[in-house]
Amino acid sequence: MSVVLSRDSQVRVMEDTVTNAEKHLGQFCSMLAAYTRKTAQVRDKADRLVRQLTDFANTEHPEMRATLRSFAEDLAKVQDYRQAEVERLETKVISPLKLYGAHIKQTRAEIKKLKQVQKNEIKQLAKLGRLRQKSPSDRLTISQAETSVQRASADASHTTHQLGETIEAFQKRKLTDLQKIFSDFVTIEMVLHAKAVEVYSSAFQTLENYDPERDLEDFRAKMHGLYGHRDAQPLTETISSPAVPWSLTGQSAQTALRGERREDEETMEASAEEDLRGRGRALHQ
Amino acid sequence: MSVVLSRDSQVRVMEDTVTNAEKHLGQFCSMLAAYTRKTAQVRDKADRLVRQLTDFANTEHPEMRATLRSFAEDLAKVQDYRQAEVERLETKVISPLKLYGAHIKQTRAEIKKLKQVQKNEIKQLAKLGRLRQKSPSDRLTISQAETSVQRASADASHTTHQLGETIEAFQKRKLTDLQKIFSDFVTIEMVLHAKAVEVYSSAFQTLENYDPERDLEDFRAKMHGLYGHRDAQPLTETISSPAVPWSLTGQSAQTALRGERREDEETMEASAEEDLRGRGRALHQ
Repeated sequence: MSVVLSRDSQVRVMEDTVTNAEKHLGQFCSMLAAYTRKTAQVRDKADRLVRQLTDFANTEHPEMRATLRSFAEDLAKVQDYRQAEVERLETKVISPLKLYGAHIKQTRAEIKKLKQVQKNEIKQLAKLGRLRQKSPSDRLTISQAETSVQRASADASHTTHQLGETIEAFQKRKLTDLQKIFSDFVTIEMVLHAKAVEVYSSAFQTLENYDPERDLEDFRAKMHGLYGHRDAQPLTETISSPAVPWSLTGQSAQTALRGERREDEETMEASAEEDLRGRGRALHQ
Repeated sequence: MSVVLSRDSQVRVMEDTVTNAEKHLGQFCSMLAAYTRKTAQVRDKADRLVRQLTDFANTEHPEMRATLRSFAEDLAKVQDYRQAEVERLETKVISPLKLYGAHIKQTRAEIKKLKQVQKNEIKQLAKLGRLRQKSPSDRLTISQAETSVQRASADASHTTHQLGETIEAFQKRKLTDLQKIFSDFVTIEMVLHAKAVEVYSSAFQTLENYDPERDLEDFRAKMHGLYGHRDAQPLTETISSPAVPWSLTGQSAQTALRGERREDEETMEASAEEDLRGRGRALHQ
């Protein structure tokens, strides 16, 4: 009897092991997937910031324009690393956890089979008990029932033994897989953080080196420069004279500026698109 | 006349400067706020993972329990740094950009005032023109109108000059503020990433050092250990004997285990709560 009870408690340990793994690994899977999704959303927000920086750079004077473009490029690089982080988390952390679903289902089926075998052993034992009480002198029937019990017990013993090995392998795989999955998580995060430190260090230098003075000179020229006399007195006598072709000079200067800007915009947009297309490729070689 | 036109184009440059700053700085503000919100959500998801790791640790054997707890603590530390990142982004990046709203409103009011002054100059000029055409011989009235024009022009010249300085200061402040804001952004991000590399390096070592063998021995003992005879043959004779007090031995062993675990759980929960309460404090000293 104690062996039957021992087997029963063994099955309970096995069931607990599988149930516990199912519950927690499932939760890890969904939580890590949520973490990864939010990380992807941080990347999206930063990508929008990159585009906004590029747009703004195109409206600024040369020094600030160059600084902002360089900063936007660095910020885009960090997002490329974040994209790689997201992809790696999906492949090396979330996918292995998802695979546990099938693995657990299969182990559950084996436990169910064992429980049937155990049920049969108990049934044979009960039958033998009844026979011994009702017809203690019927040696032949009792002997046949004893053989059945022995067969059922051997079967249960064998199946329990086998399942014990299965569960032990299950537990071992769970422990080493968790070790591997969390190590991979940490490694993936470390790569992102290390690369970001590298890229941001260069971005910091670029921003640090920016000197607004030359842009301010440009700005002053733009604000006052079309005529060049900031504090000139009004020439009231010329009021009825036909409009001087100031608009021509002014417009051509503005057109030239705008033309230059448009070209820059196009170059920037083309390279930004290339960045987006190229994303992932460069990082996954 | 050319001076009036020159002033007009100066005002347009001023208006463009303010409008452009309003548009782009507003967009930077909302995009960086969105970026910060998403970062806070990554922190929340990671916090949930920390709690889940702690819960799971409490159901595991000693080695894995210690490893998971250490990993959870490291992951929590990174979230503390992320929390500091979020707070710093709000203080040093988003708030200064928000302040531009009031600054821009004020500059717009000054431009509006200048436009009124310019309008008055044009009005006086038009009046003088009409007088010269209608009553070219009315020297006194024309002279009075000429004085009005000169006063209005001097006023416009003075106001334009003043506003020019205001806009130049506005532009200078914009350029240096953007340099400072983006530098701060980069510095804040760098601190997070550098700290994360540090913490995850230690987490990686902990996970690397985990050896499942001792836990598996524990597991084997738990699965087979209550009776200690894994392949024992059934003692069919004892079927009708009263139940042996196996449950006592078994239960007391289990109670001891559970008691130990409960104590650990309490310690863990207390320290986890302390971590949450302590969050921000330790990092902002």
